[in-house]
Amino acid sequence: MPTKVFLTEDEMPKQWYNLAADLPTPMLPPLGPDGNPISPDMLAPVFPMNLIEQEVSQERWIKIPEEILELLYRWRPTPLHRAYALEKALGTPARIYYKNESVSPAGSHKGNTAVAQAWYNKQFGIKKLTTETGAGQWGSAISFACALLGLECKVYMVRISFDQKPFRKTMMQTWGAECIPSPSTETNAGRAVLEKDPDTPGSLGIAISEAIEEAVTDETGKTRYSLGSVLNHVMLHQTIIGLEAKKQLEKMGEKKVDVVIGCAGGGSNFAGLSFPFANDKINGADIEIIPVEPASCPTLTKAPFVYDHGDIAKMTPLLPMYSLGHSFVPAPIHAGGLRYHGMSPLVSQAVVEGLMTPLAISQIECYQAAMLFAKTEGIIVAPETSHAVAATIRKAKEAKEEGRQKVIIFNLSGHGLMDLYGYDKFLHGKLGDHKMTKEEVHQATRELKGHPKAEMRKTGKW
Amino acid sequence: MPTKVFLTEDEMPKQWYNLAADLPTPMLPPLGPDGNPISPDMLAPVFPMNLIEQEVSQERWIKIPEEILELLYRWRPTPLHRAYALEKALGTPARIYYKNESVSPAGSHKGNTAVAQAWYNKQFGIKKLTTETGAGQWGSAISFACALLGLECKVYMVRISFDQKPFRKTMMQTWGAECIPSPSTETNAGRAVLEKDPDTPGSLGIAISEAIEEAVTDETGKTRYSLGSVLNHVMLHQTIIGLEAKKQLEKMGEKKVDVVIGCAGGGSNFAGLSFPFANDKINGADIEIIPVEPASCPTLTKAPFVYDHGDIAKMTPLLPMYSLGHSFVPAPIHAGGLRYHGMSPLVSQAVVEGLMTPLAISQIECYQAAMLFAKTEGIIVAPETSHAVAATIRKAKEAKEEGRQKVIIFNLSGHGLMDLYGYDKFLHGKLGDHKMTKEEVHQATRELKGHPKAEMRKTGKW
Repeated sequence: MPTKVFLTEDEMPKQWYNLAADLPTPMLPPLGPDGNPISPDMLAPVFPMNLIEQEVSQERWIKIPEEILELLYRWRPTPLHRAYALEKALGTPARIYYKNESVSPAGSHKGNTAVAQAWYNKQFGIKKLTTETGAGQWGSAISFACALLGLECKVYMVRISFDQKPFRKTMMQTWGAECIPSPSTETNAGRAVLEKDPDTPGSLGIAISEAIEEAVTDETGKTRYSLGSVLNHVMLHQTIIGLEAKKQLEKMGEKKVDVVIGCAGGGSNFAGLSFPFANDKINGADIEIIPVEPASCPTLTKAPFVYDHGDIAKMTPLLPMYSLGHSFVPAPIHAGGLRYHGMSPLVSQAVVEGLMTPLAISQIECYQAAMLFAKTEGIIVAPETSHAVAATIRKAKEAKEEGRQKVIIFNLSGHGLMDLYGYDKFLHGKLGDHKMTKEEVHQATRELKGHPKAEMRKTGKW
Repeated sequence: MPTKVFLTEDEMPKQWYNLAADLPTPMLPPLGPDGNPISPDMLAPVFPMNLIEQEVSQERWIKIPEEILELLYRWRPTPLHRAYALEKALGTPARIYYKNESVSPAGSHKGNTAVAQAWYNKQFGIKKLTTETGAGQWGSAISFACALLGLECKVYMVRISFDQKPFRKTMMQTWGAECIPSPSTETNAGRAVLEKDPDTPGSLGIAISEAIEEAVTDETGKTRYSLGSVLNHVMLHQTIIGLEAKKQLEKMGEKKVDVVIGCAGGGSNFAGLSFPFANDKINGADIEIIPVEPASCPTLTKAPFVYDHGDIAKMTPLLPMYSLGHSFVPAPIHAGGLRYHGMSPLVSQAVVEGLMTPLAISQIECYQAAMLFAKTEGIIVAPETSHAVAATIRKAKEAKEEGRQKVIIFNLSGHGLMDLYGYDKFLHGKLGDHKMTKEEVHQATRELKGHPKAEMRKTGKW
């Protein structure tokens, strides 16, 4: 049995998979400030129309343009590895696989949607993209994509990460992008936050407000905003991960997968691996699909399913999703990029429908898992990815207790070579931990309760 | 035409290629302190006997043990890419290929020999390896390899790099290794240097002395030293790069290669790609093979071919090689890992024999090349690798002037994500440059002239 399986470029999937077409219940629409569903036109100042069309598409399969395939070929198809050494260390009868998205030039899965979004924007005549980044994976990937396509790029980076990881900025600058800490004094949204709290560590919700504000206030009309997660078209672009993985598992001789795992912040790497398997599950397959989130930001496991904004300044439409509240600022202890208050509406609805069973894991357990993975499989994973590793180890241990040869696959969404700050703290026993309590979640989400659509909250099947 | 070509694990070469078997003139032996050839036994306190046997082997093909193949499968075979975007940016008729060694978990080609050396040491009953590292690529790779094989590891890191890149240390520690700056107070060699020059930036020659000293003074006899370049067995282990590349070029439909390029510090990534092509050249093929070095450390282009030590404290045997002198401390301006005073004896002799035509390039031109590469091909290369990129661009421009469809291949030996310090300086116009003059070389190598074997200096064919 090989250690890993490649595909040729010819074998790479030529279509993306759209889970929206197959969900038992149709997706709820985004709502405007008046509480009514928004029309595609209302999103036009923010996104190019070709991406808006994808955002609302109900087509099951969407063709990947040849030029985007050529951009993806720079590093795709990515390898699927069998984690023999980890299995051995755990003494588990489970067969563990991981899809290695860390081999992309920017080091994570984010490049999959970055090149697609940059390409669609360029097709639409756009010259500049603005965006936000948390830990830096997305900001790096979109800078990379804009370099390849000759677009300008400006990245608002959450201040705590900006300070912790100065070389993320250098990486983006090398690809020609501008990167500034958020909140900044360059936008109304940023200035408003700084006035109230000059020492804020920042948050993705704040950075999104700033990036959108810059895009919609550009008078040339040639600037648009780009989001690296959450939205439907982003999930769509990432499904190439799971589609490749299914082909590769088949080549490995696996006829059935038991457990599919991905870490979930906004949901994109998780969706990318899991949605094609969710399709199988809708069609009757018995698969456990687990999005894993930090216990310090337990969106899927503890927050309500509501209509909420994606950003602090309420510049985004109201999205139907699990949310800790758009003004949520996560505890500054967690170095990873999973600290977003909301969650992809597609992932949220799949959870509501019972297709997926979320799990929250504490930071220390995640780093312990990452250390074991580094010493067995050899890859130093991103702090985000460590959540998927921790869940995989839990499930592999379960399989051992049950004596079952389960097949587990997880998404190795990125490497941690730009994020060693957290490892350094862990190694020196200085990494804090935080588990958000029900009471804290209640406090954070109080305001949301009054919203008329908030009652759709999870009540089993809906 | 595909953008890149993978091989399956089955297609990966199962033997290393030993250029020593094919050189027109037999290799000169290493000499002991008395000026006589040393016997394998004399190296036994430093290296395990199985690697010493490889070091002196004259076999053309050496079988790769199955267990080492399994370790290499963690990331090998590596992809071969066609650099369409770079070609387009240069408007060259040349077809440019690069072998992407950056996809390894430690980020460079160094893992190829690291897992092999760690495995052979473990087979021999060794429990701990000591080594040195310059920019950190080798220290990271050997830490990675020792983690996979359960060996202890201690890395002496050249102080200037240690200070510039604190996260290299974290990376090694994550894999369980110990990493300290060199010169240190832990060895006689280190203390002697610090006494003379407490503010020294350090050098590979100093760090090697320290690592060897620790290995040979360990009373348990279970510690050995490991070198990441220069020696014959290291070149041997790297030849898998070129052997894979040849298969991949064939799959790309290329029948003939015109130019083979690699950056050269100690010589290992260059040898890895080029030696299998050198074999073709010995057998009559018309190939230009170019080792590229920094103008600040012009070993192959300006230094004499002599017998010299590999380290400052003269703990290594005298090796037949181009050398700037074992006490050479390179100008602290250059961030890359190509600042070693010596050069692989195998590469040195291949240059003497006219098989290879070295080139020295200044740092600024290298970073300019790396910036163009990042913006076209998307990969941020290691500062070392930027030398190969710069030479490739020169040759592609030549091909344009000559109107020739040359086939150029270079080794993308590693990514630069852990080495963004240099990019940051370059982006801000703060990167210094230094070109070592003939006079400076003369000064540095004066002592070497007196050596009885130094007269073998390049005089055309010898």
